[in-house]
Amino acid sequence: MSIDRKKISWNGWGWTAHKDDVAANEAAWSWLADELGMPSLLATPARPLDDIALAPSRLSPSERAHFAQILGEDRVRDDHFERAFHARGRSYHDLLHLRAGNLSTAPDAVLYPRGTEEVLSVLSFASDNGIAIVPFGGGTSVVGSVTGTAEDFKAAVSLDMSGTDRLIGIDGKSETATAEAGIYGPTLDKALRAQNVVLGHYPQSFEFSTLGGWIAHRGAGQQSSRYGRANDWLVSAKLATPRGLLVTEDFPASSAGPRLTDLILGSEGAFGVITEATVHVQPAPEASVYTGFLFHDFANGAAAIRKAVQEGVPAAMLRLSDAEETRFYRAYGAAGKRKSFGSRIADAILHYRKFGDTAVAMIAGFEGDAATVERSRKRFSEIAKQFGAMAIGDSAGKRWHQGRFHGPYLREPMMDRGLGVDTLETATSWSKIDALYAAVKSALENTIRETAPRPGARGIVACHISHSYPNGASLYFTYIFPRALDGDVAQWLAIKRAATDAIVAHGGTISHHHGVGEDHLPWIVQEKGALGVDVLRAIKTALDPKGILNPGKLIPS
Amino acid sequence: MSIDRKKISWNGWGWTAHKDDVAANEAAWSWLADELGMPSLLATPARPLDDIALAPSRLSPSERAHFAQILGEDRVRDDHFERAFHARGRSYHDLLHLRAGNLSTAPDAVLYPRGTEEVLSVLSFASDNGIAIVPFGGGTSVVGSVTGTAEDFKAAVSLDMSGTDRLIGIDGKSETATAEAGIYGPTLDKALRAQNVVLGHYPQSFEFSTLGGWIAHRGAGQQSSRYGRANDWLVSAKLATPRGLLVTEDFPASSAGPRLTDLILGSEGAFGVITEATVHVQPAPEASVYTGFLFHDFANGAAAIRKAVQEGVPAAMLRLSDAEETRFYRAYGAAGKRKSFGSRIADAILHYRKFGDTAVAMIAGFEGDAATVERSRKRFSEIAKQFGAMAIGDSAGKRWHQGRFHGPYLREPMMDRGLGVDTLETATSWSKIDALYAAVKSALENTIRETAPRPGARGIVACHISHSYPNGASLYFTYIFPRALDGDVAQWLAIKRAATDAIVAHGGTISHHHGVGEDHLPWIVQEKGALGVDVLRAIKTALDPKGILNPGKLIPS
Repeated sequence: MSIDRKKISWNGWGWTAHKDDVAANEAAWSWLADELGMPSLLATPARPLDDIALAPSRLSPSERAHFAQILGEDRVRDDHFERAFHARGRSYHDLLHLRAGNLSTAPDAVLYPRGTEEVLSVLSFASDNGIAIVPFGGGTSVVGSVTGTAEDFKAAVSLDMSGTDRLIGIDGKSETATAEAGIYGPTLDKALRAQNVVLGHYPQSFEFSTLGGWIAHRGAGQQSSRYGRANDWLVSAKLATPRGLLVTEDFPASSAGPRLTDLILGSEGAFGVITEATVHVQPAPEASVYTGFLFHDFANGAAAIRKAVQEGVPAAMLRLSDAEETRFYRAYGAAGKRKSFGSRIADAILHYRKFGDTAVAMIAGFEGDAATVERSRKRFSEIAKQFGAMAIGDSAGKRWHQGRFHGPYLREPMMDRGLGVDTLETATSWSKIDALYAAVKSALENTIRETAPRPGARGIVACHISHSYPNGASLYFTYIFPRALDGDVAQWLAIKRAATDAIVAHGGTISHHHGVGEDHLPWIVQEKGALGVDVLRAIKTALDPKGILNPGKLIPS
Repeated sequence: MSIDRKKISWNGWGWTAHKDDVAANEAAWSWLADELGMPSLLATPARPLDDIALAPSRLSPSERAHFAQILGEDRVRDDHFERAFHARGRSYHDLLHLRAGNLSTAPDAVLYPRGTEEVLSVLSFASDNGIAIVPFGGGTSVVGSVTGTAEDFKAAVSLDMSGTDRLIGIDGKSETATAEAGIYGPTLDKALRAQNVVLGHYPQSFEFSTLGGWIAHRGAGQQSSRYGRANDWLVSAKLATPRGLLVTEDFPASSAGPRLTDLILGSEGAFGVITEATVHVQPAPEASVYTGFLFHDFANGAAAIRKAVQEGVPAAMLRLSDAEETRFYRAYGAAGKRKSFGSRIADAILHYRKFGDTAVAMIAGFEGDAATVERSRKRFSEIAKQFGAMAIGDSAGKRWHQGRFHGPYLREPMMDRGLGVDTLETATSWSKIDALYAAVKSALENTIRETAPRPGARGIVACHISHSYPNGASLYFTYIFPRALDGDVAQWLAIKRAATDAIVAHGGTISHHHGVGEDHLPWIVQEKGALGVDVLRAIKTALDPKGILNPGKLIPS
């Protein structure tokens, strides 16, 4: 395994050693309390692991011995840390449970297979013996995709794929690479760059998530406009199932029936365990530019994105914050700091050019060969100017790029202070996006007010367009709110429900790039239709007749 | 219905009124006989429809009455022409049967529904009563996808969707259009162009095939490099099934589980009947250029395509003939014609530049806004020159473009003269394409020699790269051979088997854009794996529990 898991937080995000300036910036916390209508923030620390009891493992000695026989003794783990680490993913909802010391979903053991054959043996034995298997990549799910919920089974084990992390080979002529599914983002990226190619899949979880996880939840990296989503770059996969190995087509294109590779994308461990994947790789980009623009309002920024993407301008990323997100990041970052001369000049210019409260910031990224980057950047700047934008230079883009994986770390200092913070995302067509945006924003604001711990308390609801397509775009919401400490899980659920109901009612998908997991499962029938869910269930039954794989995910019982 | 079917050939390709110069060009036929090692060609006319008997319809009067009640009396047809027209698709194999007067696969009746509700009613009744349904769009399948084989059913009816041909609407902001599935290519294209957009799907069958058919066989148009394959441009579909209506997701992107839309692509009428589709449309191209290049050999031409597609040069089409195809079209077209002055000059230049027997021709097409077309054309010309190509001007490109839908008409004059002609196509990765090309070419040449009607007779086996991708390309083979008149179906099958075995053995797909149908079904387990076929079967059973939909297609019994 290429990451020492002991250095990763079992109940929070990423490296335990990570330090953020903001945690110690008391001025920022005062500002935030004020914004949220709270007189002060409370100390709400997480419970330490040593204080938390775990139920005894339900795996029988003979079952444990059988797994040890398949994998080797050191690859069957049931110590406290391992079980706790694998109890849940890393959503706000997960963190609420983990920090409160609720480890009821901890698996009975954690298995570390070394390859496809071992996975097949594990699945065969588990299927014959009624043991639930929860496939686990990096464990960074934010929708409850790795929760070890398995009441209907005599035991549940986490199948941790991080021991399978080899780059198997590169076919340079065909621009494909084949790797084991448990490989972490940075390990894969480094191995590919050593041969001067990239996959280009950089989700916010990049440092802590795996190739198999990206495919299983049909994810999108931050630069998917340039490199494609998982469903664009996945060529072929090996899926280990209780009924044997499914190896999907590896042709560049085919009309021989539905493409089985497409069924693995989004399968979330419910159809099988992805053990290997062949992906499309591209030459490592010669140039990379991230630059900022300011638009007068969200509508103009969105219109510029739509024009660019429909025209086919090859941007790597067009990320447009709404007015609230623009304001929040400026103010939160600035709180307690003395304004620099440059910053005061910038304010004066904005004032002069009449970018008022509705101003929105965009980060536009371009990657590839130098000529294409230069041409795209130039063309996008022209389009942005047509919609009234002002270029604000590359420093904003560089700052964004440097911090592009750090967002999730902000949650814990907030959760330490009685605050809640979560994100959710959706996508819809361009013609529905304004109504969807308004409905979700209003559902979030209203429910946060209704569930707030005191009258007058309120949330901050920020949004950005993160990914765009000729037919539409995604909306990514971040919301911060004062926690109802006597029922914070119920509060989260009420907010989530209101927002997701609004999404479904306004033609948005329940997830653009996070997946279904347990959290979105209540809406899957509305998303896919009852008959559509029957189709998914039929696929599952064909591959996993006993239903041992990731119970409670993807397909409602 | 927007096409008068009485004007389309029931046992050949396209308009009955179509006239081709070549049929009357006796010099071309002499040349061809010589090429094939035949002393002369025989007259082998097709049997006229009036001379052919049809088995009585197996539909009972009450069943017929029930369908008439759903659809109206005039939309239940069982006259001689209708049943014959729907007996088969339009492959060489189909034409052998039809021209010989074998109508054993004629449906017992032909139904013309007017929309989704009527289709649902038909399917429900048919499922309850054990009547097989063969969905029918334009009927141009060349792999046996509409053959009315249904021995296990008491009757089989063809469900002809051509009565559903409305453009329902265009969402200009989101660049999507929604249409009924039975709409013919030209009708859809005209309606879209009236609003200045195009789908851009122009398969060779364009004039006689339908939107639903393109989706059902996961097809690719000639310009799919620019406009995408069906699996690229399909946003959402309505699929009528015996278990009700499946309406798939219409989001620009989603990570909420596998995309059901992907299951409809390539479903070949075996999962349900596509009744409506929403597709991605694009602005009608401002400019369009088709131009020719000559390369010293196939390898250099292929290398130029690979470089261009991996670099992302936005060509609409890069079509590279091999040496045999290049030679054939020049010689066949020229046979019996006096050489023009221009043509003699061209020959002299080619000789001077040492383009010998290995010379290969490419047609490169560019469509879109004028600036992109100009830039792409220029960049592709640079790449072509790097690989030793000579530009041969736009007239070759224009000729190709004018005749781009006419290829299939060439089959009948050949079949009238004792000749066979068929095409097959595949795709594989760039690293496997040379070996695949050699293996299929050799399998075709050898089997044609082995099955020839006399010693010394031989075939012409030509090939071109028709579509290309960063990871690989398709190979499209055309082969002409003297027919073994005492067993021409067995001869066809022997050739098909040898070629497809070679395809599978060398890592090619059994079809890049024609589909599976009956003809490729024997290889579906090798293509998808036994477990993969189980998955497809499970999907079918979930939607069509009685198995009435297009029996014998896509899924082996």
